[in-house]
Amino acid sequence: MTRVAVLAGGVGAARLLRGIVGVVDPAEVTVVANVGDDLVLHGLHISPDIDTVIYTVAGAIDPERGWGLGGETWQAMESVGRYGGIDWFNLGDRDLGTHLYRTQRLSEGATLSEVTAEIAESWGLGFRVLPVTEGALRTMVTVADEGEIGFQEYFVRRRHDVAVTSVRFDGSESCEPAPGVLDAIAEADVVVIAPSNPIVSIGPLLAVPGVRDAVVARRESVVAVSPIVAGAALKGPADRMLVELGHDASVVGVARLYRDMAATLVVDDADASSAAAIEAEGMTCVVRPTIMSEPGVTEALARTVLGVEER
Amino acid sequence: MTRVAVLAGGVGAARLLRGIVGVVDPAEVTVVANVGDDLVLHGLHISPDIDTVIYTVAGAIDPERGWGLGGETWQAMESVGRYGGIDWFNLGDRDLGTHLYRTQRLSEGATLSEVTAEIAESWGLGFRVLPVTEGALRTMVTVADEGEIGFQEYFVRRRHDVAVTSVRFDGSESCEPAPGVLDAIAEADVVVIAPSNPIVSIGPLLAVPGVRDAVVARRESVVAVSPIVAGAALKGPADRMLVELGHDASVVGVARLYRDMAATLVVDDADASSAAAIEAEGMTCVVRPTIMSEPGVTEALARTVLGVEER
Repeated sequence: MTRVAVLAGGVGAARLLRGIVGVVDPAEVTVVANVGDDLVLHGLHISPDIDTVIYTVAGAIDPERGWGLGGETWQAMESVGRYGGIDWFNLGDRDLGTHLYRTQRLSEGATLSEVTAEIAESWGLGFRVLPVTEGALRTMVTVADEGEIGFQEYFVRRRHDVAVTSVRFDGSESCEPAPGVLDAIAEADVVVIAPSNPIVSIGPLLAVPGVRDAVVARRESVVAVSPIVAGAALKGPADRMLVELGHDASVVGVARLYRDMAATLVVDDADASSAAAIEAEGMTCVVRPTIMSEPGVTEALARTVLGVEER
Repeated sequence: MTRVAVLAGGVGAARLLRGIVGVVDPAEVTVVANVGDDLVLHGLHISPDIDTVIYTVAGAIDPERGWGLGGETWQAMESVGRYGGIDWFNLGDRDLGTHLYRTQRLSEGATLSEVTAEIAESWGLGFRVLPVTEGALRTMVTVADEGEIGFQEYFVRRRHDVAVTSVRFDGSESCEPAPGVLDAIAEADVVVIAPSNPIVSIGPLLAVPGVRDAVVARRESVVAVSPIVAGAALKGPADRMLVELGHDASVVGVARLYRDMAATLVVDDADASSAAAIEAEGMTCVVRPTIMSEPGVTEALARTVLGVEER
C-alpha cells in the first residue's frame, strides 16, 4: 500500500492524478486542492481547480477545452449575456449544476470539504479531494494596467495576457488547513507536488498556515514534477509569470522554488541537460517524458513519481 | 391617456396585462408585482411572479407549461438531480440566466426594483414592473401534515395538493413599499386587481404597510377581476384555499374580500346569476367573458376593465 498526497492545481495536476489512481489504490490517494482561484459569481460558489480535478479523473472533462464538462450547452450564459450581465467567465449548463449544488449545500451549512466529497463521490471517484482550506483564500493578482484583480479576472477575463507585478493570497493569514490536510501530508508515503503553476496553483496551498511546514517536514518523501518544459509552460502563463516575478522560467528556476520542501524534481527529457544544475540546488533530478498529452506518458510518469518500480 | 396600476400575481395577471398594454400606451402602465413567492435556492434569487409577467408579455413564456421560457433545455437541473440536490423547483437553462443576472446585480448592490427594470427593459417591455417591496416579504403556508413551509414548497414541491390551515406574510411588518408603488396607485386613472389568487398573490401586496390603505383610498377607481369562475379557479389552488381558510370559493366570496377596496368586480358570464349578490355586497358587478385562453377575450376584457369604451 502506497499512501499518496498530491498538492494540486488544475489541468496538469488532474492529468497526473489520472495516472496515479491507475497505479495505486485510489483509496490511498488524497488530493489537496487549490481554492485560491475560487470565486463567487452570480451568487454561485465556483471552485475551478476542484472541478477540473474531479471532471478530469471522472473522464467527464471536455477534452477540447480542457475545462468544464463534455456535452455542454451554453443557454444560461447566453441568457446572462442578453441581459448585459457578466459573461466572460463561461459556465456551461451542465457545469452550472455543480455550482448550484455546491452553493445550496454551503448555504445549508455544509463545509466546502463536505460538499467537495459529495461531488467527488457522485462522480464515482475513489479518492479523497480536500480543499486546502475551508476559509476564504483568494489569489489576487496585480497587473500593470488595472491594479489588483481577482485571479479569474486575470486568467479568464484578461486571458492572462497582461504583465503581473505581484501576487497576494488574500485571507491566507486567517485561514487554516481543512480537516485532514496536514494529516494527509504527514502520513503519505509520497507527497507529490503536481506539475501546476508554482506561483498561483501551488503557491496558495503553501500560503495556508501550517501547510508549507508540513511539506518541508516530509522533504525526503516529496517529489515535484516540473510544470516548465524547455523553458515554457505546457499550458497557461506560468513561464511568463515566473519571469515577471523575478524567477527563472526553467527547471532550475522551479528547483529553486521547491528545493526546501522537495528532495526530488522530475523534469522532462527535454531538460536532461539541466540535471546537474538541479542537483547543484540540492535536489535529486529524475529525467523522464512528462508531456501527458502524449500516449503512455501519464501512467509511466505516475509510476516514476510514486517510485512504484522500486517498491 | 389612461394611467393604469395593476396589482399582479402570476399567470392570470400576466395574461390580462398582455391585453392592457394592447389597448393603452404601455408607458402609462405600472405593474405592482407580488414578491411573496420569491425564494433563494441554489444561492439564486428567484422571483417567479415577476418573471411570469415579463416572460408572458414579452411573448417568451412557454405556452404549454405557462411558466418559464420557451425553447428551454434542462441540463443544469439534471446535473443538480444527479448530485442528489434539490430539483423539485425546476429551472430551465435559459431561465437560469435571469436568476444568475438578478443575483449578481443584487450582490453588486442593485435594488430589486432596479434589476427588475433592467430585465423588463431587456425584454423590450414598454411598461414599468415594480416589485411591491424591496424587503424580504415571504409568503409562508401552514399545511396540515408538515407545519409551516415556504410558498413554493407548498405550490411546487407539494403541488398544492395538501390542505392549508393558515397563510402568513413573513417580514410584512418590517418591509415598506418599493419606490413608486404608492404613487402609482395614487396617480392611476384605473387601479386593476388582476385575476390572481386573492390570498397568496394579491394578499402579499396588501400586507405591505401602506398598500392596502392606498388601494382603499382609490376604491372608486379600483376594478377587480374575479379569479374564480363558476366556483373554481382557472388555474392553481385558489378555490380550495379560499374554502380551507373560511371564505366562499365563488365570485361572491371574492366580492367580500375586495369590497372595501374595489368599487367594481368583473365576473365571467358563467357567474351572471351572482350579479345581484355582488351588488348586495356594495360593488358594481360587470359580467363579461373572462377566460383569457379563449380567443378575443383578453383584449375585450382589458377594454372592459379600463373602461376604454367610455373614455
